[in-house]
Amino acid sequence: MAKGIFLTLEGIDGCGKTTQARILAGNLASRLGNEAVLWTKEPGGWAGGEMIRALLLQQGMQHPLSELFLFLADRCEHIKEVIAPALDAGKIVVCERFTDSTLAYQSWGRKISLEKIEDLFRWCAFPVPDLTFWIDLPPGKACHRVSRRGGLDRMEEKGKIFLENVRNGFLFLSEREPERIIRLDGDKDIEAIAQEIARRVEVVFPREGQEKRR
Amino acid sequence: MAKGIFLTLEGIDGCGKTTQARILAGNLASRLGNEAVLWTKEPGGWAGGEMIRALLLQQGMQHPLSELFLFLADRCEHIKEVIAPALDAGKIVVCERFTDSTLAYQSWGRKISLEKIEDLFRWCAFPVPDLTFWIDLPPGKACHRVSRRGGLDRMEEKGKIFLENVRNGFLFLSEREPERIIRLDGDKDIEAIAQEIARRVEVVFPREGQEKRR
Repeated sequence: MAKGIFLTLEGIDGCGKTTQARILAGNLASRLGNEAVLWTKEPGGWAGGEMIRALLLQQGMQHPLSELFLFLADRCEHIKEVIAPALDAGKIVVCERFTDSTLAYQSWGRKISLEKIEDLFRWCAFPVPDLTFWIDLPPGKACHRVSRRGGLDRMEEKGKIFLENVRNGFLFLSEREPERIIRLDGDKDIEAIAQEIARRVEVVFPREGQEKRR
Repeated sequence: MAKGIFLTLEGIDGCGKTTQARILAGNLASRLGNEAVLWTKEPGGWAGGEMIRALLLQQGMQHPLSELFLFLADRCEHIKEVIAPALDAGKIVVCERFTDSTLAYQSWGRKISLEKIEDLFRWCAFPVPDLTFWIDLPPGKACHRVSRRGGLDRMEEKGKIFLENVRNGFLFLSEREPERIIRLDGDKDIEAIAQEIARRVEVVFPREGQEKRR
């Protein structure tokens, strides 16, 4: 049984996941020590992950299920090699993108059956995050931010309609599991979002002498 | 509907798949022209396949399902980019390893549910080969052959019991589908095996003015 706390950040490229993950992991590390916190991401957050990440980013996969299977392989190893050992050691894991990204992108974006993907998640016994922060930013604004860091080509390839569909996926998921998935307004300034995340994270912390709320 | 002929060769490393694929593809090409025949293999027989092949061979995957998902991603792209276009163009495709290898290695070798893997195959709509040649060689003899070409380390890692289990998988599959999966005695000499393959392949060839037997 995992003793740590598993936090994930979700949302489309440009929404501010990395910025918020850095602030959250930094604050937790200041308070609890570097050893108590693990900041990681998907895809690619394990030893062989960079190869899968490169495959996903460089190769235009042509079969509708290839990308899903690569994400699943990547997640299996990421959990087994990185996330599960950290949780077992009682750490707080902050992970950019996890199962909700796969559901939103592959099911709402690429129209693969939600039920099938969730069956696979259960088969793989993926852990469910204690808390998930979905940073919701309209695709137009997210594209604008990404263009400033020079990554727009890949994002524009996907197209506005695709990203609107993905956003609808995150919306559905957050409404289905409102206790776990917290929607944050990505239009707010960085500090305001960080404060909201910090406030929510307090709730899942175990109090002295108490078991963690799950 | 595919108009070509899809032939696969199966068996453990060292059984003689590549040798027989070369002879078969060579003979077919002499008779029908190079353009009429495609010789390919799994994993890795498509544009990005070398990266997946490298991941599978170099990284020791730790989660029991990672390898399966990588093989599925590899096969999806291999079919979409290479096999299906060749079959649609009426070619004869000779492929080293395909779905039967996944079943024998992942289910008999790694003990993943056969039913689950076959559900995934159906979901992916993988084509069923017209004929499959399983070259059956005892693991001890196969290891001996592989050691002569310097690849024994990886094979010995898997161990004799693992390879005996895989052999039992191929045996089960060939008994379940005796019309499609032809067991060949890998102990016979190369020429004798090649002749048996050639004889069997004749049967699936369309005669003049007839539809292919499927």
